[in-house]
Amino acid sequence: MTVGVLGAGQLGRMLALAGYPLGLDFVFLDPARDAAAGRIAPQIAGAFDDPDCLRELARRAEVVTYEFENVPARAVQLLAGLVPVRPPSEALAFSQDRLAEKRLFRELGIPTVEFAEVNDLPGLRSAIARLGLPAILKARREGYDGKGQVLLEREEEVEAAWSRAGGRPLLLESAAPFAREVSLLGVRSTRGETSFYPLVENHHADGILRWSLAPAPGGDTDLAAQASEAGERLMARLGYAGVLAVEFFEVEGRLIANEMAPRVHNSGHWTIEGAETSQFENHLRAILGLPLGSTALRGRCAMVNLVGDIPPLEALMTVPGARVHLYGKQVRPGRKVGHVTVVASDEPTLRSRLGRVFDLVPGARAAR
Amino acid sequence: MTVGVLGAGQLGRMLALAGYPLGLDFVFLDPARDAAAGRIAPQIAGAFDDPDCLRELARRAEVVTYEFENVPARAVQLLAGLVPVRPPSEALAFSQDRLAEKRLFRELGIPTVEFAEVNDLPGLRSAIARLGLPAILKARREGYDGKGQVLLEREEEVEAAWSRAGGRPLLLESAAPFAREVSLLGVRSTRGETSFYPLVENHHADGILRWSLAPAPGGDTDLAAQASEAGERLMARLGYAGVLAVEFFEVEGRLIANEMAPRVHNSGHWTIEGAETSQFENHLRAILGLPLGSTALRGRCAMVNLVGDIPPLEALMTVPGARVHLYGKQVRPGRKVGHVTVVASDEPTLRSRLGRVFDLVPGARAAR
Repeated sequence: MTVGVLGAGQLGRMLALAGYPLGLDFVFLDPARDAAAGRIAPQIAGAFDDPDCLRELARRAEVVTYEFENVPARAVQLLAGLVPVRPPSEALAFSQDRLAEKRLFRELGIPTVEFAEVNDLPGLRSAIARLGLPAILKARREGYDGKGQVLLEREEEVEAAWSRAGGRPLLLESAAPFAREVSLLGVRSTRGETSFYPLVENHHADGILRWSLAPAPGGDTDLAAQASEAGERLMARLGYAGVLAVEFFEVEGRLIANEMAPRVHNSGHWTIEGAETSQFENHLRAILGLPLGSTALRGRCAMVNLVGDIPPLEALMTVPGARVHLYGKQVRPGRKVGHVTVVASDEPTLRSRLGRVFDLVPGARAAR
Repeated sequence: MTVGVLGAGQLGRMLALAGYPLGLDFVFLDPARDAAAGRIAPQIAGAFDDPDCLRELARRAEVVTYEFENVPARAVQLLAGLVPVRPPSEALAFSQDRLAEKRLFRELGIPTVEFAEVNDLPGLRSAIARLGLPAILKARREGYDGKGQVLLEREEEVEAAWSRAGGRPLLLESAAPFAREVSLLGVRSTRGETSFYPLVENHHADGILRWSLAPAPGGDTDLAAQASEAGERLMARLGYAGVLAVEFFEVEGRLIANEMAPRVHNSGHWTIEGAETSQFENHLRAILGLPLGSTALRGRCAMVNLVGDIPPLEALMTVPGARVHLYGKQVRPGRKVGHVTVVASDEPTLRSRLGRVFDLVPGARAAR
């Protein structure tokens, strides 16, 4: 059985590492030379919308999945006529359009921030009049890790923001006064079986995830129920198969959905060591119709991204309970080149070990 | 950093799966088409003693290791002049010759069965006179999984045994009245750091390992000390780097060394899920001079080989704590095509889960 994957970055690489023990083979499509997954599996080097490449991918794979959500719609259309594509294309369509995504959340009764469609400067002004400031002006499409977003705090900034961001479909969102960001990792198989990992608490710097805690402190009761209820509704509505990540803001004990990613997710990397079954293996089980594996924890977990730099490996390797994951990527500023998982049997031990990792990973500790 | 590996079977495959997260690349040399490791890493398809292939391996790798002990001596000689080969060739030489191996054990004060060199029929008769019967006549070289061995129980069998086994260097060993077989997995790095996994209890059928328990019941006290003392001596004597497996018979509370394998070992597969650091990762750390990872247990563990058949995966996947590993090999009678690891927090739970796996894996439960 061969799984085709659109995108050959680290997520695809970790999918392959999880799938090989299940006897699966992989083939990736990605234009990048020296792609992370291309170092460990066959790669078709070509554009995501190249019909010949897509046909070759479909020919070589029994099922196709993707590791990023900005897959061109026509690529999915072409593929879907040739081979099962999972998660379903509808999930991809919603996650590619922040406005449609927010409307889906609302349709399903999942709390969101206030938001408004913005197509021109007068529309932006009237949206601000309705939502108030501060607010965030976002491109409806593209943009990740905080790119393509402008925080508006005062009326005087409106024209400058418009000149930076305008000219494409936008939406304005109220800036939620959130205490923290948490994420839900859910999984649903083609058989309709669902399971959820414990909530994860995420810490960002410059719009990039820097570290996560699992389970999220204080997230094991009502918060987790709110999150998994939202996840259940989304996955059922979309006829979903695979791992679905949903990011939430916590505002006064209430979860507000921010966005979703129809794929394995950076905030779930800790599951490789920290859960009975990793998000990568469960994604594969889900899209192949196999029974899902347990999402139970094996301890208290943290994950620290290695961004733009690889710290001294030997020092990291001597931190008890720490596991290093490198992606085989060239180091560049702002680029995720690896991560470290830390597992411990109790919270104080985890914090102590995490502190040692922070000492070795510049910039991580300060991330909010 | 690229690691070259002689042999591209399942052990090499699991080495690569453990090394990829460390950012390592791999290249394998193996004559077999469709080799297990060749499905997930570049493979030079050629004979182990083909000088051109060996030179290419040395050119593409910064360090070379091996996944089986019957590497031709001249291959190692050629390689060792071009690139570091670890574990050291001396370990390979001892493990390739059962007589030299036994003499090494004796030199180091490690208990063995009685043994005698046998080169002709009169020599066999005099060895029997000295050792008594039952005894086992073994080829000094080659043979694994019980092949190349003849059990001698009565004088009348001697000539038949000679006609089957004679004509090559042999040794005769007393047949130890052993209670069970246990194995030690030790690891020593190029820096001289050593560590040992808990003792493993092994169960065979037809000379093939069928299942293992870790830790070996009752093996956590004096037995473990006997084993690790032997491991320390062997690894120090050989200037060892990598994982070393030593098989012992337990006879009345005393461990008698049977043989060693200078490589990762089937009886250590449970370490992937069951130990803090797998034997595969620690082998790589050891040969690369990195700090060794913890060999502590994450629970009570069992490993069941899938021999000659792949049972229904979905049923195996629903056994709690069970993890399936397939090697991507074609099924053939007697061929190891995968294994299942079972982990539990206590012994009764482990036994119950193991029972469910036995129900799905024909022939495993009955193995002694």
